[in-house]
Amino acid sequence: MRILIIGGGGFVGRKLAERLAGNGTLRGETIAHLALADLAEPEPVSAPFPVTAHALDIADRPAVDALLASDWDVIYHLAAVVSAQAEADFVAGMRTNFFGTFNILEACRERVHTPVLVYASSVAAYSTDVPQPVADWTATTPQTSYGTQKAVGELLLNDYSRRGFVDGRGARLPTVVVRPGAPNAAASSFFSSIIREPLQGEPAMCPVDVSQEVWLASPRVTVGNLVSLAEIEGEALGGMRTLSLPGMTITVEAMLEALRAVAGENVLGLVDHGRDPKIEEIVRGWSARLEADRALALGLERDEDFERIIRDFMATDMRPPA
Amino acid sequence: MRILIIGGGGFVGRKLAERLAGNGTLRGETIAHLALADLAEPEPVSAPFPVTAHALDIADRPAVDALLASDWDVIYHLAAVVSAQAEADFVAGMRTNFFGTFNILEACRERVHTPVLVYASSVAAYSTDVPQPVADWTATTPQTSYGTQKAVGELLLNDYSRRGFVDGRGARLPTVVVRPGAPNAAASSFFSSIIREPLQGEPAMCPVDVSQEVWLASPRVTVGNLVSLAEIEGEALGGMRTLSLPGMTITVEAMLEALRAVAGENVLGLVDHGRDPKIEEIVRGWSARLEADRALALGLERDEDFERIIRDFMATDMRPPA
Repeated sequence: MRILIIGGGGFVGRKLAERLAGNGTLRGETIAHLALADLAEPEPVSAPFPVTAHALDIADRPAVDALLASDWDVIYHLAAVVSAQAEADFVAGMRTNFFGTFNILEACRERVHTPVLVYASSVAAYSTDVPQPVADWTATTPQTSYGTQKAVGELLLNDYSRRGFVDGRGARLPTVVVRPGAPNAAASSFFSSIIREPLQGEPAMCPVDVSQEVWLASPRVTVGNLVSLAEIEGEALGGMRTLSLPGMTITVEAMLEALRAVAGENVLGLVDHGRDPKIEEIVRGWSARLEADRALALGLERDEDFERIIRDFMATDMRPPA
Repeated sequence: MRILIIGGGGFVGRKLAERLAGNGTLRGETIAHLALADLAEPEPVSAPFPVTAHALDIADRPAVDALLASDWDVIYHLAAVVSAQAEADFVAGMRTNFFGTFNILEACRERVHTPVLVYASSVAAYSTDVPQPVADWTATTPQTSYGTQKAVGELLLNDYSRRGFVDGRGARLPTVVVRPGAPNAAASSFFSSIIREPLQGEPAMCPVDVSQEVWLASPRVTVGNLVSLAEIEGEALGGMRTLSLPGMTITVEAMLEALRAVAGENVLGLVDHGRDPKIEEIVRGWSARLEADRALALGLERDEDFERIIRDFMATDMRPPA
């Protein structure tokens, strides 16, 4: 079992690599090689099998072809220019999210060996323009360029799978909270910051009204579901290879209330409130109420308890307060 | 008012040009120039304004840029590699339908002047994989590469419109029946052949069971709706710029019954029946039951009577029997 994680330097990619290292197997086979690729060569993870690291710009077609020329059994495509960045820089988003995904699919098409391809789409593919809650058969009506580019990838994944070029499985990721590390250019970044920074003794800014809802999942459940998506049989997904991963709908207010319950009033006091219209507009356009019937029927997991998500973060990812 | 019809050599493009020539105006302005572009330079139509003809391969980005460098007020994008051809030749379909549409959008993005862009999508973007009838908010789950490529264009049209690069309006065309002329490589071609050829004294083959349903519209109503789509205000379409044009759901059996009613038993006798599994599979994957509530609310037209469609064909397009 040879696995390639494109976007392996990102936080989800890294957690996925660690999970695979712990499991040692995928699809019933012992992992023989794990490759991590990202714009900057990722730090390797420690594992009971060889792990290699590769610098890769997925918009660079020859580079994609070269890395995929080594036949991989399972490829994770988690690489993206994130939402606020793709909104601010249209060309950068098209280059990586639109053409990068196309390049990966095309490189797979030209291989004799058909890989399992797990594609990370996003809840940003859905919007509040359509009847809520969003069901598995609701149209993707993204209100951002990022969401558009992700939704295009979903369509291509279906067709490349139908034709047998890849054995595709796509996951519309909920907003993943609590992300470790530093804030990034995702419009959703603050959903983690308002929990992470206060726990680490730093101030955080909440740029939206606390009544704002979000569809979120923990890193633990998200990574488990990405593993499961590689393990199921692709035919179980039918002609629509991408599904919404299960998430929980929660308001910012309830998130902050959970932070208070877990860490106390003083920690909560580190959260300041100041609206950012650009972030508000993007986030307000995302559906926060989804049904994930297909994913649940396939045995994928769901978070139920935001306090547990906070405690998981404190146990595994928190940098101790200075 | 300067208008460009890309795909102006096709049957719908040509009928649209003739309609515009008859109207003389669009969006309340006198038409000053109509350009017809297609792979092979189209025959001009006679009109009370200058009509030019251009050879254009939309997969050729510099050629698209050059033609669009002359600022057009309204651009119709009707060019496509059709369904059975895109299914048989994946690369050709991607080249024209995926990259060609992208090239047109990109050329528009680089203009200062924002054109109205009317984009022809297809009922093939929908499938029978989703709850029927297909509503305006149902996911596009195409089961062909053609449908996939068309659905990708819909997503891009939304985003390019949201960003103000184009003022886009997309139309999911029903199967247009009765097409004049010769059969083409569309899997839907036989829906016209089984009416057209017998009326013209020639045999025709029906490759599907007569119980097969189809979502169809006449050339007259389709062209009228394409004109209307250019005339409405783009904001009326909201964030989802493509809508399903109104059609009628009819079985092949009812189509043939209408042919008998209009033209008699002898004409009907020219239709032979012999199943073609490839055509059957493609056609069976298309939804034949759609709602077109958005289009009807915007005042777009609907066919009600298939016998009238046959009589219209006989009056305007039929080649007299040899």
